[in-house]
Amino acid sequence: MTATAATSPTNGIAPFPTRSGCSILLPQGESVDAIKQPTRLTDAERIDRLRLIRSDNVGPRTFASLLNHFGSAKAALAHLPDLAKRGGSSRAFRICSEDDARAELAAASRLGVTLLAPEEAGYPPRLTTVDDAPPLLGVRGTIETLMRPMIAIVGSRNASGAGLKFAGQLARDLGEAGFVVISGLARGIDQAAHRASVASGTVAVLAGGHDRIYPSEHEDLLGAILDANGAAISEMPPGHEPRARDFPRRNRLISGAALGVVVVEAAHRSGSLITARMANEQGREVFAVPGSPLDPRAAGTNDLIKQGATLVTEANDVIQAVAPIMERPIMLPLREDDDDHLAGDPHAGDRAQITSLLGPSPVLIDDLIRMSGASPTIVRTVLLELELAGRLERHGGGLVSLI
Amino acid sequence: MTATAATSPTNGIAPFPTRSGCSILLPQGESVDAIKQPTRLTDAERIDRLRLIRSDNVGPRTFASLLNHFGSAKAALAHLPDLAKRGGSSRAFRICSEDDARAELAAASRLGVTLLAPEEAGYPPRLTTVDDAPPLLGVRGTIETLMRPMIAIVGSRNASGAGLKFAGQLARDLGEAGFVVISGLARGIDQAAHRASVASGTVAVLAGGHDRIYPSEHEDLLGAILDANGAAISEMPPGHEPRARDFPRRNRLISGAALGVVVVEAAHRSGSLITARMANEQGREVFAVPGSPLDPRAAGTNDLIKQGATLVTEANDVIQAVAPIMERPIMLPLREDDDDHLAGDPHAGDRAQITSLLGPSPVLIDDLIRMSGASPTIVRTVLLELELAGRLERHGGGLVSLI
Repeated sequence: MTATAATSPTNGIAPFPTRSGCSILLPQGESVDAIKQPTRLTDAERIDRLRLIRSDNVGPRTFASLLNHFGSAKAALAHLPDLAKRGGSSRAFRICSEDDARAELAAASRLGVTLLAPEEAGYPPRLTTVDDAPPLLGVRGTIETLMRPMIAIVGSRNASGAGLKFAGQLARDLGEAGFVVISGLARGIDQAAHRASVASGTVAVLAGGHDRIYPSEHEDLLGAILDANGAAISEMPPGHEPRARDFPRRNRLISGAALGVVVVEAAHRSGSLITARMANEQGREVFAVPGSPLDPRAAGTNDLIKQGATLVTEANDVIQAVAPIMERPIMLPLREDDDDHLAGDPHAGDRAQITSLLGPSPVLIDDLIRMSGASPTIVRTVLLELELAGRLERHGGGLVSLI
Repeated sequence: MTATAATSPTNGIAPFPTRSGCSILLPQGESVDAIKQPTRLTDAERIDRLRLIRSDNVGPRTFASLLNHFGSAKAALAHLPDLAKRGGSSRAFRICSEDDARAELAAASRLGVTLLAPEEAGYPPRLTTVDDAPPLLGVRGTIETLMRPMIAIVGSRNASGAGLKFAGQLARDLGEAGFVVISGLARGIDQAAHRASVASGTVAVLAGGHDRIYPSEHEDLLGAILDANGAAISEMPPGHEPRARDFPRRNRLISGAALGVVVVEAAHRSGSLITARMANEQGREVFAVPGSPLDPRAAGTNDLIKQGATLVTEANDVIQAVAPIMERPIMLPLREDDDDHLAGDPHAGDRAQITSLLGPSPVLIDDLIRMSGASPTIVRTVLLELELAGRLERHGGGLVSLI
């Protein structure tokens, strides 16, 4: 993904409830400052991008590098097999065929799902700023709801009665204040938060494909969400059955699309704490609901507060904290390789030297450039080759390691 | 009270449990840096001081000013009627007689209570640093316990089962770590904290005289505390029945003697929040135990955390926070009039002018000096006169107002 952006159908944000509670105009929508009008992909470009992200060893960060290096998905697709071979791929490199991409688009369409790029209307504006934002997001439901400011509410699946009640109350109050509640459609806190915000607008983020709802008994809840101008989003293709490792990956979309994440109840080492950690890494506000030290379901949230999360006992605690953030335009972060649009042609010596500097511990790409003495373009090209060969992992913050 | 201090029978503080929990030597005692050896009042000086603090309109702050102005309690007593008359006292000024003071000392003695000045061993070292510390404190029990580092645990009288359990657990753990638990002998949290720290040492702070235990059913608990090397303290004379207004006054002693105050459960506007406010004004650490937003007994503690109190889920949260404070010597604050040892003799014009600058809103003594153009000595003498006449109230922070 190069410098891309989405923008709201409305112009920025309406006056926001003040501390005194006098103004109660609702926040209307969010916009990304970089691009004022949403664009729309051509069908061909959408097919090419889908083929690229569904090809072997291409994740969101590799996708962004490829698009940046080659200028278009089409050009990147043409170079993929060569890059992978040079990176030392032992087996044949699989590129998603045009037929497969068309079949996925058709299957999505039958489910009422549109695959949107970050620069298109309907892609949650804040999510575009996350460095591993999905290059194409499967969106089902009401586009306008996805453009409004969101607060994530997450927590235990086996929540207490008090936790469920509080989650519902908070979701209702945030909904009345004009926020969209985003969550993971799980049992417990997620469910309570979605249910209480069906009327005001809520977004479910799925770990599997749009036709693989987990847990399946929440299909009714999802139906109610969609019927009431809500939405569901997923980066997975139709038919994808969610596995354990898909949930943490999904959680980055919950936090990334939101202004902040409220953790209502969470035991030590629970999935909600992963969402909180991701929110923190993404620069999102982290909120936590306190509980008795004797309640294991409050251990995680109390810890979050000790670590600096904002203590929440009512919706206003959240609203006051995000108000100043909403007043600032959404800025796209500069990408590490924004200055680097042409692929160089590394020599075998470069390749060997850069590879030898890598190991299982993540290192900064900037350090690799410094230590190798090679040009940034050469280093990034070698990294792309290794990545496509399935030998390199990209972490956040410009870190890479060998697999 | 002039520059007075108490010191520990032991020399300073033993090595303290580190963050890693390796060193578990107990904190042994506290000492005040200003004076290395505790002194002992003569009987005559003790009688004079008692007469002074028990005379009309003499509170701890007035006592300190008088002692500072006149150099001794005896000299101050001689000047009291004159000062009060010049301040415009309408009725006869009552000075506590020597007989009454001797009778109080005898009554205290029969109860096993010693009246101690801040510079004597047994006066809690940290309490000496509070600007309205009692000039004489009635102490019953084990002196050594009163010299050890203390943590206050306070909270609701009608506490929840979880609150009581947590208070007990916290008190036990702090006791095992070498801290004395100090509290108010009230029902609920106080009681639970005292009971769990009987074996390790606990101090009860009374709102009435030592023979007027409130609630009376806690006489047994007090007996157990005293039998196990604990102590009880009060600034009130024997026979003094505690009234509503004595409790907030008493609370300043709980916080003042401690390194920090842990509020376990507290509703909005509860007495424990007064103790927390006083702790904050005295520069003590404020700790609060979180609870569910749906539990009214956690409303006050959650609010304290929002305002910056340290969240506590285990004793270690307290121990880590006070460790750096214990490493610093206890410093006596400079008094507003430390540079001003001789009483001047104000003219009627000074008196009228300074009085006209005063009103029901508190003003800084420093501002009065500046605005009146009179010397600091003159201004402070006029204030003393007004105070003894019952026309002036002293607040903390060098503020005064007309009554």
